Amino acid sequence: MSEFFTLISPDEARARILAHVKPLGDVEAVPTVEAIGRVLAEDVRSPQILPEFRRSTVDGYAVRAADTHGASDTLPAYLKLVGEVPMGQVASFEIGVGELAVVHTGGNVPPGADAVVMIEDTNRTGEDEVEVRKPVAEGENVIQPGEDIDEGELILPAGHRLREQDIGGLMAVGCTEVKVARRPRVYVFATGDEVIPPHEATKPGQVRDINSYTVAALAEQAGAAVTRGGILPDDFDTILARTREAIEAGADMIVLSAGSSVSVRDMTAEVFNQLGEPGVLVHGIATKPGKPTILGVGNGIPLIGLPGNPVSAFVQFLMVCTPVIYRLQGAEVPPTRFVRVPLAVNVPSTAGREDYVPTRLVERDGQLVADPIFFKSNLIFTLVHADGLLRVPLNATGLEAGEMVEVRVF
Amino acid sequence: MSEFFTLISPDEARARILAHVKPLGDVEAVPTVEAIGRVLAEDVRSPQILPEFRRSTVDGYAVRAADTHGASDTLPAYLKLVGEVPMGQVASFEIGVGELAVVHTGGNVPPGADAVVMIEDTNRTGEDEVEVRKPVAEGENVIQPGEDIDEGELILPAGHRLREQDIGGLMAVGCTEVKVARRPRVYVFATGDEVIPPHEATKPGQVRDINSYTVAALAEQAGAAVTRGGILPDDFDTILARTREAIEAGADMIVLSAGSSVSVRDMTAEVFNQLGEPGVLVHGIATKPGKPTILGVGNGIPLIGLPGNPVSAFVQFLMVCTPVIYRLQGAEVPPTRFVRVPLAVNVPSTAGREDYVPTRLVERDGQLVADPIFFKSNLIFTLVHADGLLRVPLNATGLEAGEMVEVRVF
Repeated sequence: MSEFFTLISPDEARARILAHVKPLGDVEAVPTVEAIGRVLAEDVRSPQILPEFRRSTVDGYAVRAADTHGASDTLPAYLKLVGEVPMGQVASFEIGVGELAVVHTGGNVPPGADAVVMIEDTNRTGEDEVEVRKPVAEGENVIQPGEDIDEGELILPAGHRLREQDIGGLMAVGCTEVKVARRPRVYVFATGDEVIPPHEATKPGQVRDINSYTVAALAEQAGAAVTRGGILPDDFDTILARTREAIEAGADMIVLSAGSSVSVRDMTAEVFNQLGEPGVLVHGIATKPGKPTILGVGNGIPLIGLPGNPVSAFVQFLMVCTPVIYRLQGAEVPPTRFVRVPLAVNVPSTAGREDYVPTRLVERDGQLVADPIFFKSNLIFTLVHADGLLRVPLNATGLEAGEMVEVRVF
Repeated sequence: MSEFFTLISPDEARARILAHVKPLGDVEAVPTVEAIGRVLAEDVRSPQILPEFRRSTVDGYAVRAADTHGASDTLPAYLKLVGEVPMGQVASFEIGVGELAVVHTGGNVPPGADAVVMIEDTNRTGEDEVEVRKPVAEGENVIQPGEDIDEGELILPAGHRLREQDIGGLMAVGCTEVKVARRPRVYVFATGDEVIPPHEATKPGQVRDINSYTVAALAEQAGAAVTRGGILPDDFDTILARTREAIEAGADMIVLSAGSSVSVRDMTAEVFNQLGEPGVLVHGIATKPGKPTILGVGNGIPLIGLPGNPVSAFVQFLMVCTPVIYRLQGAEVPPTRFVRVPLAVNVPSTAGREDYVPTRLVERDGQLVADPIFFKSNLIFTLVHADGLLRVPLNATGLEAGEMVEVRVF
């Protein structure tokens, strides 16, 4: 038995593989409207200023601010109405001393005017006369040209993963096409003599493939184009041949959901070493669940051996594979965001190991608390019933009820 | 001017429209592998137990626990090796008194045995002899049949939105097809004489359509099938005709990104009242940004008038439309999850109004803090540069630097 692990911390494990992973560098142009979740391949700078014209932020009257100075309920200013600026056009007239014009929210502020008085602070007192009961300062209720973004200003940097509002920002300045990183091609294999496809009936001793599906879904969420390579037997030659075929077919990353027994893990490690230099980088991580995770790189292609256990595979995918898929796209690896909530019960742990405990988030006395789901052995339904993962830090010997803890919400 | 709003709180506004929205009730069967993000139309119960056989959680030897009692480094138990259980099969033999057999992680525990001793606690001392140096209790390192899930047990309830791990759980018990709610058909229109499509060049006074795209993306994220209906002029008859056409074409929900001026808002409200009973339910919400939001229902179809301002439209979509789209699918409306972090600077506010301030999350002294982006008038690029929305509660008159605050992370 070569169970001779050097267990390293999750942070160190991730850093070790990321040190060998380079962005693919392949770029494709896609319509902005289809670019959500894609990673920008280059800085996007604004081709124009925004807004392009002086806009009112309120419904009201464009004025010269000086004409309203001192105006009050008891001593209003009376100004002459000289027109209205229709939406979608700019004013065809100028505001002179003692004059004002109707403007709508978002509409153009005509030349000569330097502020907008809100409709609520006025009264129409005649055909072409308006009473102003409140002074405005110069620039009040006006957005200046370029105030939202300047021409040539950086809108979004290379490496940014596009969100809904980013699409809007790009559309606002007419960027209807963007250059993004090609989706990394991730091949996912399940291995194990006991594993059968989900649509088949189990014979005694067999279990259905879970990990091909959860892993594929998580990889797609991270931006990958996934090929499910099916279920491979626990046979060195077969696994080596099929992973080599995947690489020849253009795989950018290989994920094996391997069995959890030591012999199978050793086989996975040996396959990785055959797939190119440097081969295996991490053989075992000081974490639970997920200790038997194997990380490697072969000729620049990340090689991941996830434990067969579905909870371990799920947790380690989030901790290691998601950052790797981001890196392949040239994306900044986003920090893991936790919610901080009180813990409902004591949670035991072992110092020197980072634990992730599937956890419900439940209301108790009007407050959200973390209620861990205790489990014997990482059953898939602990994850199904969980709202997130409770993190027990590397050096904690346990967490106490009532303590504030960190939960990574699904 | 009929600027005669009755402003109600965001919670009350949401409750008022949700009270009129019923789940569509249409069901479709989809392959489980394509069902991520879909909402279950019926309870799913397990057709079988899981696991289906006694499984070992470790690499080691299946034993009768009683045979290991008292075993220690100085006084090991010596047991007779009678076989190995191959993965994917069940044992063809039984473990008798004084006997043991090799089992792998996840493999079947043979009849007669009632525990598994870990390989690390043993030595192979002969062809068919193993030294056991540590006792195991009955049931130790064994998962019992049905321990993960029982036959007939509820796996996931109707109304649950499927996540990656749920797909795995369904696959584990052979559920390769699920019944889900039909995607709600959401029609999104931009309105405004000043609005042009993003690919066109602006003339003075014109702005490009942003909201059709951010709103469509957010609606799709919530599970909707979206039709972008294009840009409509500020013309009552046109807007009424086009929304009626959408309803005749099968719309389950209408979203107008309307202008922000009072006259346009009044026009939107009048259109909603023409589209059926009860018409407008909410005309203005005590929130910033998003005060001019209009909510209505016409013959059971939710009608949403978002402010034209892109930040307002984005925030109010999250606050109101996402819950409505969930409800149309029969889904439990998920609680909004906030991260709690310290605030970097003072934030002024007005009591009686719930504010959402676009905010960066930045590291300061090794801690994540909320650094609000102050803005004059909800410019789209404040959202592009933000990591989330800082919530200023309804009754706060402001928040102080250093205070713990809630941020809804994008």
